[in-house]
Amino acid sequence: MESFNTENEFIEWLRVKALDGDHRVKAGIGDDAAVLAFKRGYEVLLKSDMSIEGVHFKASLHPPRSVGHRALARSLSDIAAMGGTPKFALVAIALSTRSNHSWLKSFYHGLFALASRSGVAVVGGDTAAVSEATMVDLVVAGEVEPGRALLRSGARPGDAIYVSGWPGASALGLKLLMKRPRLSRGFLIPPRARTSAARVRTPFNPRHALQAHLYPEPRLALGRYLLKHRLASAAMDISDGISTDLGRLAEASGVGAVVQENLLPKPPNLRLRETDWLKRALHGGEDYELLFTVSHSKVPLVPRAFQGVPLQRIGEITKSQALRLVGQDGRERELEPGGYDHFRKA
Amino acid sequence: MESFNTENEFIEWLRVKALDGDHRVKAGIGDDAAVLAFKRGYEVLLKSDMSIEGVHFKASLHPPRSVGHRALARSLSDIAAMGGTPKFALVAIALSTRSNHSWLKSFYHGLFALASRSGVAVVGGDTAAVSEATMVDLVVAGEVEPGRALLRSGARPGDAIYVSGWPGASALGLKLLMKRPRLSRGFLIPPRARTSAARVRTPFNPRHALQAHLYPEPRLALGRYLLKHRLASAAMDISDGISTDLGRLAEASGVGAVVQENLLPKPPNLRLRETDWLKRALHGGEDYELLFTVSHSKVPLVPRAFQGVPLQRIGEITKSQALRLVGQDGRERELEPGGYDHFRKA
Repeated sequence: MESFNTENEFIEWLRVKALDGDHRVKAGIGDDAAVLAFKRGYEVLLKSDMSIEGVHFKASLHPPRSVGHRALARSLSDIAAMGGTPKFALVAIALSTRSNHSWLKSFYHGLFALASRSGVAVVGGDTAAVSEATMVDLVVAGEVEPGRALLRSGARPGDAIYVSGWPGASALGLKLLMKRPRLSRGFLIPPRARTSAARVRTPFNPRHALQAHLYPEPRLALGRYLLKHRLASAAMDISDGISTDLGRLAEASGVGAVVQENLLPKPPNLRLRETDWLKRALHGGEDYELLFTVSHSKVPLVPRAFQGVPLQRIGEITKSQALRLVGQDGRERELEPGGYDHFRKA
Repeated sequence: MESFNTENEFIEWLRVKALDGDHRVKAGIGDDAAVLAFKRGYEVLLKSDMSIEGVHFKASLHPPRSVGHRALARSLSDIAAMGGTPKFALVAIALSTRSNHSWLKSFYHGLFALASRSGVAVVGGDTAAVSEATMVDLVVAGEVEPGRALLRSGARPGDAIYVSGWPGASALGLKLLMKRPRLSRGFLIPPRARTSAARVRTPFNPRHALQAHLYPEPRLALGRYLLKHRLASAAMDISDGISTDLGRLAEASGVGAVVQENLLPKPPNLRLRETDWLKRALHGGEDYELLFTVSHSKVPLVPRAFQGVPLQRIGEITKSQALRLVGQDGRERELEPGGYDHFRKA
């Protein structure tokens, strides 16, 4: 009996076994969200994302509102990466008997707040009580212009690679939180709706990193902007870190990539050793920023920032299927995936 | 801080808090599945159902193929109860490190087999590894004729109450399995596609009960038949037992119901004490049969069986909002919900 060494192997097995060749399925297993032709000329996006206590959040670190916000943000971010508009959400929650109903209410308050300002109606779900870890599965259904969804598979050699915001901020926030869990007390509710770390132009401070981690802002408007102006040849969201997710995008497109370390976005006035920041920027997960590619001719059309969120060119798509990193020293080396992989053997 | 004594109280709280008044949501939290008007004249059904190790299945009792089959059957049954046609499924699975990849493959084989013959494409999902119990969340998206979905809320006083198949068979199967776990060895794969306990006209035997429990057949064709011929005023599936689910249907419709104990379908030649069977028929869960109401004038149009599945009239909807049971002795008493409620205090 064969077994799976990595999550990618498992996903590949699934892709072959599932009815993915179905003509109604425009994109399925292996992209950010499924693109489904329910009827001719009408496409629906569908995405499921789990949030598991001890894996995606810790009851001791993450306030329940943040858990609710992040659970939904994860799925919304995938819809954003397709250039879609989210419409409806289903919430399945297996609540640990260690958590009380006050926790559950705060969880929903955090989730509803983000749903409401994203135009998403929570329309159902499932509930259960479990003795062990709390588990949430969040499903979002949305719309996208038929035939226009931003896929992972459209990158071509020569395309420029961009990221939005400051990947690494969430990992930094988590580190701060682990050192001083009491910091979360300032974030029992989202600091201010519609602000986010990436919109801050003033010196970056720990508060921004904590906000990026606890209340990440899905880049819905940016995704729609990229689709509308046909700027992106491929796109996905960064949930497991640039090094892991860029590899997935490259694989889906049958290409390689080279990333310039000195182009990785670095927040202004960050008080952190540069190498510490770069490690997080490359490998830190849960940023929910967008990673997208732009054909050479369209690069001049990409704004430096979109609604206050910086858009930074970090490298280029290559023909060779390798993933390379050009260091600060100008030397090129292999860019190894350093993000989280649920199936990797420890 | 108020807390929830029952699952219904929690669902009511959710319904008020969620954006359920949204005009795009034709039915939401509290019905079998959400009915969503994605665009004018086009409605989509969406349903999420969890299967949790130790709650919905036991690794020691349920073969992985059965776990996969049942995980999907739960959601398909909800689509069936709305009279809809399932199209796509998402599978989120947090796999216990106690289970190996061979378990995972068999799980998917069971799921794919049912998906394939139900016309459902598995289009995505999420995977994670957890140290404790395996949890699955299965989401199904489907279609329904606009404005025609069978809701829980349409029952009117005087309507006849029907059930399909033999509710109680699954609970009996579970009992047999708990007594002799080795019985499941005969069911490592579904005995024969497209057969089901309820189609059996010969004497009912333990094998049928085991099959009803391990490989329940969602009543998709029946649901569509009821919708097409406008037979049902209300419908839902029986997942938590007639006594619990009829209460939900009655509450959604603002009515009551009276059930005749002697009308409950009883398999032919069942070797079981009558009282034991009736307890299971009323309170046993996981049958995934349909419970539906039919207005007086349409009762003559309801066939005795549909595609081999018996349709049995078991009682009547009443104006008084109470739930009553007329016993074998002709005496009427309160019908108390005896099904599983995840939030009920033990």
